[in-house]
Amino acid sequence: MASSPTLLVLLIFTVTTTTIAELTPNFFHQSLINHQINSKSNIPYQTQFFPQLLDHFTFNPQSYKIFYQKYLINKKYWARGDPIFVYAGNEGDIEWFAANTGFMLDIAPKFRALLVFIEHRFYGVSLPFGMDSYKSTETLGYLNSQQALADFAVIIRSLKQNLSSETSPVVIFGGSYGGMLAVWFRLKYPHLAIGAVASSAPILQFDEIIPWTSFYDAVSQDYKDASLNCYEVIKGSWAELEALSVQRDALPRISRLFRTCKNIQSVSSARDWLWKAFVYTAMANYPTEANFMMPLPAYPVTEMCKIIDGFSTKATKLNKVLAAANLYYNYTGTQKCFDPENRTDTHGLYGWKWQSCTEMIMPMTTSNDSIFPPVTFDMEKLVKYCMNIYGTMPRPHWITTEFGGYRIEQVLKRFGSNIIFSNGMQDPWSRGSVLKNISGSIIALVTEKGAHHVDFRSARKDDPDWLVEQRRQEVEIIQSWIDDYYSEF
Amino acid sequence: MASSPTLLVLLIFTVTTTTIAELTPNFFHQSLINHQINSKSNIPYQTQFFPQLLDHFTFNPQSYKIFYQKYLINKKYWARGDPIFVYAGNEGDIEWFAANTGFMLDIAPKFRALLVFIEHRFYGVSLPFGMDSYKSTETLGYLNSQQALADFAVIIRSLKQNLSSETSPVVIFGGSYGGMLAVWFRLKYPHLAIGAVASSAPILQFDEIIPWTSFYDAVSQDYKDASLNCYEVIKGSWAELEALSVQRDALPRISRLFRTCKNIQSVSSARDWLWKAFVYTAMANYPTEANFMMPLPAYPVTEMCKIIDGFSTKATKLNKVLAAANLYYNYTGTQKCFDPENRTDTHGLYGWKWQSCTEMIMPMTTSNDSIFPPVTFDMEKLVKYCMNIYGTMPRPHWITTEFGGYRIEQVLKRFGSNIIFSNGMQDPWSRGSVLKNISGSIIALVTEKGAHHVDFRSARKDDPDWLVEQRRQEVEIIQSWIDDYYSEF
Repeated sequence: MASSPTLLVLLIFTVTTTTIAELTPNFFHQSLINHQINSKSNIPYQTQFFPQLLDHFTFNPQSYKIFYQKYLINKKYWARGDPIFVYAGNEGDIEWFAANTGFMLDIAPKFRALLVFIEHRFYGVSLPFGMDSYKSTETLGYLNSQQALADFAVIIRSLKQNLSSETSPVVIFGGSYGGMLAVWFRLKYPHLAIGAVASSAPILQFDEIIPWTSFYDAVSQDYKDASLNCYEVIKGSWAELEALSVQRDALPRISRLFRTCKNIQSVSSARDWLWKAFVYTAMANYPTEANFMMPLPAYPVTEMCKIIDGFSTKATKLNKVLAAANLYYNYTGTQKCFDPENRTDTHGLYGWKWQSCTEMIMPMTTSNDSIFPPVTFDMEKLVKYCMNIYGTMPRPHWITTEFGGYRIEQVLKRFGSNIIFSNGMQDPWSRGSVLKNISGSIIALVTEKGAHHVDFRSARKDDPDWLVEQRRQEVEIIQSWIDDYYSEF
Repeated sequence: MASSPTLLVLLIFTVTTTTIAELTPNFFHQSLINHQINSKSNIPYQTQFFPQLLDHFTFNPQSYKIFYQKYLINKKYWARGDPIFVYAGNEGDIEWFAANTGFMLDIAPKFRALLVFIEHRFYGVSLPFGMDSYKSTETLGYLNSQQALADFAVIIRSLKQNLSSETSPVVIFGGSYGGMLAVWFRLKYPHLAIGAVASSAPILQFDEIIPWTSFYDAVSQDYKDASLNCYEVIKGSWAELEALSVQRDALPRISRLFRTCKNIQSVSSARDWLWKAFVYTAMANYPTEANFMMPLPAYPVTEMCKIIDGFSTKATKLNKVLAAANLYYNYTGTQKCFDPENRTDTHGLYGWKWQSCTEMIMPMTTSNDSIFPPVTFDMEKLVKYCMNIYGTMPRPHWITTEFGGYRIEQVLKRFGSNIIFSNGMQDPWSRGSVLKNISGSIIALVTEKGAHHVDFRSARKDDPDWLVEQRRQEVEIIQSWIDDYYSEF
């Protein structure tokens, strides 16, 4: 195992660790894909397609190419003039985001809201060049956040016109990358959305706005809070894996230990597989049983630590963390073996990889207190990596140039309004979001025990009080935006 | 003469009337070009060039092409940390805008401001493809307002970094189209400019936000206010020209009457030449002698009407208006003849023609009370015209989708801050701007006697009190933005 690998965080809600030295990305995303397919049935939305312009910001002949952008719509509670709630689709199949954003469906009757979930260009089936969309930089070049925001703008305007409901107030929702898009949409298109509800939106995870160690420090903190022993076991396990890796027959031995379906080709696959389990479990550290990334019990970090703490002291740290990882990868107990090197590509993943190599440059490193082994961020390596795959130069300062982020409190204190930044501190992405009120109407709703956009999940009877209260506040604030809006007519 | 020609307004500060039926644009812009050349000497700015990205909003291989964008800079009054005043260059050579925006130079010492005038891409010498920039839609496609705003963002960020003055507050200024860009820049890039001063910025001249007759009604009002007889003479003169045009030897006769250097090919050239004189004189109805479009006396509308009213009642209306037009075209008395069909193209003009055929669709018509003959706006004809020249479809709703405009009071009342909309009611473009305060910090400064961005011109000893007062208020407001900014550090 490389002593100081540089990791690329490639997915906003699914952290994929890639050893740049390999120049081969790891994608461990199969569960999500299965979920996407499964979730397509029985959803309370109609599927529609919008003829969308390929390029909003140039007027070349090829800019005028039309592609069909998918959106889901639910008109059940709505009449002309009533509010429209739009979900800003992120990096994947829109059904999956709709299924994981039950909050909007839950509150639609109260607001008599039309619900619209817009799929992000180049994800799901909204592929501008069909199956050729990912073929080259000539086609991929049109995949980025600004074009996506303009897509939303065009669809919202057209939809209101087609519904003869131009005066309907629009509120835009989004979680994770979709939350970033929701905030940016409110900031860039205030004439089209009266407010934004952004859950777990790490709009400050760019450039040098926040410390680069924030993300992995937050993951570490989750495990430390659960149990100090647990934290120390995970922290110490990597050295054991490294020691194994220099032994004879390292790969078959590690494969057996990790119960892989076939022998792994590289120790880093095993390391990344473990790494991912701890990161995703922290993100999905929900207060109730849930199936966001994988089926998991309530408070899965605590459960993992219980497993680790339950071992006798004689057991190796590696054995303990493997038992913990089993919770993440095999909570249902149906997996006979694992496949850490499954690099099946899917459109959604490939798209985010592109975005991570162009605009979505989020530097992340580990600190000494991290449960993870040392990683550094090296812009030169990233450039080499991206040039190698795509022949495309990253633009590491573009997001902060286009959307800001530095000194956000001062900038937005006297500018902008009607944004909710909701975050749960269990979610490592929270550290890249806005955690304090900026003004009377740019509000941070932070819960100590929340995880990755937990507030956007459907309400359940066993939801804890703090979650019920967080959602209640969101509804109250949204209501005030809508009341203000109608009062000015 | 066509009975009901449809006119295209092609230039924001230089209205060019084009009879769509001809499918050949008229450009009467020579004076401006001469001015540009003359004004290049002895300006208090250094010329710099910035290596700019061709396309900020795609990541295709061609997006990465670098071109050299010109900007003018004056550091005389500035030290690190002091404010930076940026002028958002419009559709022409940046020297010309710098020369006509003496206000910034006048107030720079008080603010210890760095002055930067950024040339708009595809104008002046900031040509992404050199002399081939206007060759085809493949190259012209990159000319639009959003790319221009992103250019400004990238330059401002880079400049602050190179000056090691990241904390300097930036105020963005602009007049006319540049004023629109300044407002939009403040709205889209609040993290890069703490405020915008937009003089004569018709951001509402799009789609169906304001009545389409507003512009020409305002021109008519200027002449009516000067003298009812003057208004009626101009209004009645077109019928006389039309009557002439159906007579034998119409073109030579009209040519003689209009004192053209060579016989005109089309009556519409003569009509447009007259038309333009009245529009530009209204725009440049400054309280002091000035040379913005052409050398003109103080209050040239009044002077024109004096000429018209000074005639005996026996003179034809056409003779009267021709004498008035002579004031506009020949105030210095040096012109022996006129050349209404001079269609010399220049980059600046061609660029705005392109913008008018893609995003800058500003519908304008005349009402019955207009001093001008009837014109209608026909989107189908515009589409045909633009398809014929460029093969490019106009996007008539794009500006309002991207930048808003409808219900701007309600939208910006709770969103945005620190914008001055300054307007003079003599300027017909004022009708497309913001004429009432929107909030405590989105302010309309309106003068009854002001014309096209008169407040941005250099202060003169003979400036009237209302103009001195308007500029004083602007300085006071800018000072309050800067004070607020520094107080939050």
